Amino acid sequence: MLKVNEYFDGNVKSIGFDQNGEQSTVGVMAAGDYLFNTGAPERMTVIKGNLTIQLAGSSDWQSYDQGQSFEVPGNSSFSLKVSSPSAYLCEFLG
Amino acid sequence: MLKVNEYFDGNVKSIGFDQNGEQSTVGVMAAGDYLFNTGAPERMTVIKGNLTIQLAGSSDWQSYDQGQSFEVPGNSSFSLKVSSPSAYLCEFLG
Repeated sequence: MLKVNEYFDGNVKSIGFDQNGEQSTVGVMAAGDYLFNTGAPERMTVIKGNLTIQLAGSSDWQSYDQGQSFEVPGNSSFSLKVSSPSAYLCEFLG
Repeated sequence: MLKVNEYFDGNVKSIGFDQNGEQSTVGVMAAGDYLFNTGAPERMTVIKGNLTIQLAGSSDWQSYDQGQSFEVPGNSSFSLKVSSPSAYLCEFLG
């Protein structure tokens, strides 16, 4: 019901939950560089810290602080640079 | 480094992290009634969903939605009523 997932040798951990049919996860990323693939489209919101991201096909890096959100298309990917442990909410929009 | 904790038979799960010396957790509570004790004072922020809480020594219940925060004194406790799975950020203020 609350599902814990680990990625990148435990440097990213998340807890998945379902609220009124909406699938979401909250998670934390340790400092590092990551590449995530998407299935469903998703909205990422920074809960604490900072995520600097590059969407697939883009040459730009954009920085998001606490309270800011970005969306990632489905069946795509995005790269992240994380300079200190940062928490996020991921809402699946599928 | 990212520490997963479980409480109340897995109905509450959290991920602890340290950001620039500030200890925090993000977590999810399944629907239910809970009582938490505090060590350090803490600030709780609702990330998604709703938390209805009663501080120790108070007769009032107060409801907090996404984006809203409340603080809990150290060496105290608070009761929660959670009607659907809800995510939170807990920042230790010690």
